[in-house]
Amino acid sequence: MNWTGNDVHSDLREACVAEATAIIAEAGVEALSLREVARRLGVSHQAPYRHFESRDHVLAEVVRRAYVRFAHALGRAPQTGNARTDALAMGMAYVGFALTHPLEYRLMFGGALPLPSAHPEMMNGAREAFAVLQRTIEGLFAARGQAIVKSDIDRESLFVWSSLHGVVSLLRSDALNTLELDDDARQQLVAHSLRKIGMALGIVPLTDDAGPAGGGAQ
Amino acid sequence: MNWTGNDVHSDLREACVAEATAIIAEAGVEALSLREVARRLGVSHQAPYRHFESRDHVLAEVVRRAYVRFAHALGRAPQTGNARTDALAMGMAYVGFALTHPLEYRLMFGGALPLPSAHPEMMNGAREAFAVLQRTIEGLFAARGQAIVKSDIDRESLFVWSSLHGVVSLLRSDALNTLELDDDARQQLVAHSLRKIGMALGIVPLTDDAGPAGGGAQ
Repeated sequence: MNWTGNDVHSDLREACVAEATAIIAEAGVEALSLREVARRLGVSHQAPYRHFESRDHVLAEVVRRAYVRFAHALGRAPQTGNARTDALAMGMAYVGFALTHPLEYRLMFGGALPLPSAHPEMMNGAREAFAVLQRTIEGLFAARGQAIVKSDIDRESLFVWSSLHGVVSLLRSDALNTLELDDDARQQLVAHSLRKIGMALGIVPLTDDAGPAGGGAQ
Repeated sequence: MNWTGNDVHSDLREACVAEATAIIAEAGVEALSLREVARRLGVSHQAPYRHFESRDHVLAEVVRRAYVRFAHALGRAPQTGNARTDALAMGMAYVGFALTHPLEYRLMFGGALPLPSAHPEMMNGAREAFAVLQRTIEGLFAARGQAIVKSDIDRESLFVWSSLHGVVSLLRSDALNTLELDDDARQQLVAHSLRKIGMALGIVPLTDDAGPAGGGAQ
């Protein structure tokens, strides 16, 4: 992108974010620096500093946008009013976003983030995404008349997050290829895991194809 | 390490593996090359090729050893004869290994591996680790008189693997710090997730402190 420097500040800010995103996509987060952003935009080394205090600040903004986009993707899952159906839809939306937005997913969950306490807007983005999960769990609790206790909602939300994160991480890991697994088992990883997470949440399987492995509690 | 070149072949092979491991630990897997291994050992550039066809071959050997060590750690979990207790112990051994051996864990599951089909010994190591998980699941099936069907065992094992992988990945992720969570919820992530995975497997919680979130099926 060529940047003349004649535009208003907000445009330069947007251009910095776009260029930072492109650098990360092309060369990884390690390659990001405000100097490189400036070089690619054709502006002075100092220009990006009008909008971002440091390289971490522009990175935090890229990460914040990823979280907000992720939150919207989760929030767009169909709301039927049936808490169990909605929870399953949110789970599928989670996996769907992770698989179709690998760069953003890796940015959010894959490695080192700018220090959260120094970047409150990034934290707000993360909380916005987590809140969709918390609301979904709350819906499940409410549907079965269970008391809404924040610490219970949080630990249940963390379990669901970690399980879904495990599924998408494993799907993208080479480790899965080191095993000679039944094709069915691999292909069903998402569906089976969503069903199992549902069982862990006390949701009766929505489908009746759980088979022997879907058996209830002893 | 200084290497005189006067020792027997098998010692040079071991030295190459040790040096490759050190390079990965110090500078990441991207820094690994047989040339760098040779340089650090003080041997000729050609010497490592007597034992390893390529950089990927020595990497595959490092990864294989990580898998074997992981399999032993999982297999060393106490065997009580109670399938449910043993399953919980294996889950704790999994999390324990991942948290105390971050380098090996990341090597196995974190990124790009040498092409599995070209490195059958590495695959054997991976299968050895996965087999511990499969046997644990088989034990659970057997304990409740459920038929042992390989595809069921495999998909259940994959679910458990992905869930445990999610827990340890989240624990090491900065993303967890972007949320202002109840300390309890964070600290209980491992214990709560193990209990939830147990519920998903149809195991009645072993402890009675599951609280409201541990409620049974609707």
